[in-house]
Amino acid sequence: MFQTFEEKADGSKGPERLAALRARMAAAGLDAFIVPRADAWQGEYVAPCDERLAWLTGFTGSAGFCAVLADRAGVFVDGRYRVQVRDQVADVFTPVDWPEVQLGDWLTERLSPAAVVGFDPWLHTVAEVETLRNTLEKKGLSLRTTDNLIDPIWPDRPAPPDAPFFAYPIENAGETSANKRARLAKTLSGNGQTAALLCQPDSIAWLLNIRGADIEKNPVPQSFAILRADGTCALYARDGRADAIRDHLGAGVTVHLLDDLIRDLAALTGPVLIDPKSTPRALADALAGAHVATKDGADPCALPKARKNPTELKGMREAHLRDGAAMCRFLHWLSEAAPKGTLTEIDVVTALEGFRRDTNALLDISFDTIAGTGPNGAIMHYRVTNRTNRMLKDGDLIVVDSGGQYIDGTTDITRTMGIGTVGADERRCYTRVLQGMVAISRARFPKGVGGQHLDALARAPLWADGMDFDHGTGHGVGVYLCVHEGPQGLSRRSQVALEPGMILSNEPGYYRNGAFGIRIENLVAVTDPAPFPGGDAHRALMGFETLTFVPLDRGLIDASLLSPDEKAWIDAYHADTLARIGPRLDGAASDWLKAACAPL
Amino acid sequence: MFQTFEEKADGSKGPERLAALRARMAAAGLDAFIVPRADAWQGEYVAPCDERLAWLTGFTGSAGFCAVLADRAGVFVDGRYRVQVRDQVADVFTPVDWPEVQLGDWLTERLSPAAVVGFDPWLHTVAEVETLRNTLEKKGLSLRTTDNLIDPIWPDRPAPPDAPFFAYPIENAGETSANKRARLAKTLSGNGQTAALLCQPDSIAWLLNIRGADIEKNPVPQSFAILRADGTCALYARDGRADAIRDHLGAGVTVHLLDDLIRDLAALTGPVLIDPKSTPRALADALAGAHVATKDGADPCALPKARKNPTELKGMREAHLRDGAAMCRFLHWLSEAAPKGTLTEIDVVTALEGFRRDTNALLDISFDTIAGTGPNGAIMHYRVTNRTNRMLKDGDLIVVDSGGQYIDGTTDITRTMGIGTVGADERRCYTRVLQGMVAISRARFPKGVGGQHLDALARAPLWADGMDFDHGTGHGVGVYLCVHEGPQGLSRRSQVALEPGMILSNEPGYYRNGAFGIRIENLVAVTDPAPFPGGDAHRALMGFETLTFVPLDRGLIDASLLSPDEKAWIDAYHADTLARIGPRLDGAASDWLKAACAPL
Repeated sequence: MFQTFEEKADGSKGPERLAALRARMAAAGLDAFIVPRADAWQGEYVAPCDERLAWLTGFTGSAGFCAVLADRAGVFVDGRYRVQVRDQVADVFTPVDWPEVQLGDWLTERLSPAAVVGFDPWLHTVAEVETLRNTLEKKGLSLRTTDNLIDPIWPDRPAPPDAPFFAYPIENAGETSANKRARLAKTLSGNGQTAALLCQPDSIAWLLNIRGADIEKNPVPQSFAILRADGTCALYARDGRADAIRDHLGAGVTVHLLDDLIRDLAALTGPVLIDPKSTPRALADALAGAHVATKDGADPCALPKARKNPTELKGMREAHLRDGAAMCRFLHWLSEAAPKGTLTEIDVVTALEGFRRDTNALLDISFDTIAGTGPNGAIMHYRVTNRTNRMLKDGDLIVVDSGGQYIDGTTDITRTMGIGTVGADERRCYTRVLQGMVAISRARFPKGVGGQHLDALARAPLWADGMDFDHGTGHGVGVYLCVHEGPQGLSRRSQVALEPGMILSNEPGYYRNGAFGIRIENLVAVTDPAPFPGGDAHRALMGFETLTFVPLDRGLIDASLLSPDEKAWIDAYHADTLARIGPRLDGAASDWLKAACAPL
Repeated sequence: MFQTFEEKADGSKGPERLAALRARMAAAGLDAFIVPRADAWQGEYVAPCDERLAWLTGFTGSAGFCAVLADRAGVFVDGRYRVQVRDQVADVFTPVDWPEVQLGDWLTERLSPAAVVGFDPWLHTVAEVETLRNTLEKKGLSLRTTDNLIDPIWPDRPAPPDAPFFAYPIENAGETSANKRARLAKTLSGNGQTAALLCQPDSIAWLLNIRGADIEKNPVPQSFAILRADGTCALYARDGRADAIRDHLGAGVTVHLLDDLIRDLAALTGPVLIDPKSTPRALADALAGAHVATKDGADPCALPKARKNPTELKGMREAHLRDGAAMCRFLHWLSEAAPKGTLTEIDVVTALEGFRRDTNALLDISFDTIAGTGPNGAIMHYRVTNRTNRMLKDGDLIVVDSGGQYIDGTTDITRTMGIGTVGADERRCYTRVLQGMVAISRARFPKGVGGQHLDALARAPLWADGMDFDHGTGHGVGVYLCVHEGPQGLSRRSQVALEPGMILSNEPGYYRNGAFGIRIENLVAVTDPAPFPGGDAHRALMGFETLTFVPLDRGLIDASLLSPDEKAWIDAYHADTLARIGPRLDGAASDWLKAACAPL
């Protein structure tokens, strides 16, 4: 079992740990210290040794930070975690609504102008520190880099991960690392840059066709790399972990100890491209200290990685059919088991993981399954524990958001199902969410359109009924990599133009606090621009190819709300699903699928 | 009659005028000279004395410029005018696709590195010159301000406008100028600025509650103003034109000669707020030459002017009902006259202006009526002339885009009508455009949403059929001011968050080259945020109040394509139209309206 159900942290120890931290702060002459939920790689998941925020506060969300002052400790969390944080942290911590309240403003309002704020420069990016510094310095406060103050007071802190990196086969990657490096090197030299410092493990994984097992769910190798303008690359990782892949990496890539990175950075001749949004302040300081010129820019791997090649797209299609068959077996099981009235959310999560394991191809789940029924469904990033576990009851909805890691692709799918007889209001809300999902699925669009322009299509049906959802409509997805990857997205904040091959989730939702939650999610890939039969011959529009094929709960659809186009899309989607997944099922599951895919 | 039908310019004189200009350029030592379609106020319309581009080239579009070199003269026009420009200019001029081709790039590719490019600093903004300078200087070219080189070779150049400015009554303005000035002055002093230089005539009109008659269609006063941080204001206008409104302006506003502006700017103590996008380079040079510190920022009137107050909204509603009744009389007339097969586009324009004049309240049309039938409908900014005038034929569509200026408001409405029996393809396209128009009309949205986020709602029904339209979905509209005003808009380029009181056009279209055109346009006002009955109580969503009430051509609607929500919106809109406009009509027009407003 990949997923566990215990509470991951215990807020009751918070007060004594906070006191110990404050003693360290006083000894170091600091008026404040920042404890982020981050490691040096700024990913969504961190290894147990980097769970400093959870250890200190008890808060286990996937984003946030604690700002500790002598008399107050603010735990900054975003909209997803406002309920959860109150449930998890002790009274000595004050939840703060972030990003509405910015750290710099919060600090300057509470500290005297001469105050000194400490931070561990490995855990904060250049951009993050700059933003904070700008605010603090205006009011006379200063920032100081320090050793991490949590580590010495965390006696049983786990050891860092030590699993070896491994090769990602060319049959799945579709392009050699040498090719990728040559492409990027050409851009670097064209821009007059001697090298790029790569700080995102999924960028390095993509560039070198490798994977790692350092953290759960996302098979990224904890490492840094220097890509030179001649196409060679130096990979930095902790002791010995890249030894087994030296042959795979080939002559153009050398392997080094992470401990040598700062020394080697100082020896570079600039200008070196760095991404302020992913480069730890510690590495930028190393370059600045050695007077190596740097140039700020986006991680050069980000966009090329996002444009999936034909091999990657083929792998993603197959992974989704495999995963879709497992999902269908699960939904068939659920349709029989749920009415008995004895199922819990944990039963659901366990069964689903079992169906995925039965594919004999599951390498990991791509994130902890969200299975929330009744009011738990309204908690957007709910993770069931033994304490919160709830029975599936007649009339309730259950949101199941889950995914698998397979060698050929990463999946992420959400389906919402009704248990027994569901009310008309829930059906209306489900149908509005579905209309948003269908609007994105059907969307065609010209060059230059980005997520910021399309996001409203997913919301308009909800908005028209006075509803909305407080998360983005979609995120990028990697190929046997991170289930959340940039730079593309479907949200008002996403300014990246969509390009062929980009993979996105399409997941509008609706959450009624204390009552129920709804989310429907497919993954889609941006198609090549082409004129549309019957449309203008001179307009080459892109669109979305749906990758996910799993039935939508027909019992929750109020067909009287649908347009002819929407109805046609849903019927065609179900016909496609039957045609693609049907041959992978047999017996009762196959019969279930036929019924589930019947036209509306 | 406000509208005329002759060709506005004659391209046949282009070659000799171009030769005369080149002689002047040579004498002045210039390798290039720029002739923009602009006056010192950068508005959409210019006075006859400022039609230098049309005089030189014959091109009469509302935007563009000519870059004259010794051996070549490029006429830069945008997508709206690519066909028209080829029709209007002589062979000595080369049409250039702008903004795809940028002026700076075009110049540097054609001129030697030592070349000097001349421009009249009154006719170009600070921002425009900066962009050009950046490109030119990289390649060693230089820019030089000069006197205008067209004026001395234009023997019969008309005199500048001399109509007096006039007061805009408080019953229509809804807020005194003193109040507006005090509001803005507070922001200026809060930002540490001593004054703002106002260069947009509609900003000055709004701020001082005045109007002018300097140019057709837009009742703006050609003037500049200095608003001081104490709320007082100095108005600069040509000789005597503000004399009659000295009492109206009151003690806080002084009147000055335009000729004194440069001297007075030099005497200011900075920092002075200037908007680089509207300030003529000549005025920025005057400030810089006198070492007056400036601060770049948006015109401080732009946003406050865009947020219409309750009095302005009330006026706009009444103006739209008055104008809507005239439109309905026109459509009734058209429904009877068109089938006879003898009508031309000019007849349509003339009749429509007549119906508007019959209101006894029409002060001007708000722009030249576009009445394009058959293939003329596909020319987005078509203006019928005696040469292009076309008969309305059975099976054709006719697009009529028009508006009126009334003391209480400005209108802008487009309806597309079918003549006789229209084909299924035209009906499908019309319905797709209508679905886009309805999507914007029905849109609700939270705070922070701007035109860039909503634009796709208007296009998605077209995109899904492989179609699109090459103009924005909507523009801001003034109150007895410019029919096109900023800063808000409905387009992917518009990043301004929508706020209550903003008025926008909602006008998707579809244009099939050589065949037909379709556009449907209503004006809408952004509503106050409020929860929606049946929606989430904590979500205060804004929406659009429709201002325009005129029936849509039911014969062009393919109801089988519509969603239940769309059908309900159209039926409700027609019921509203009947209820509001019905009492203003009688006899046959009233009967026509009843039939036109019947449910689908």
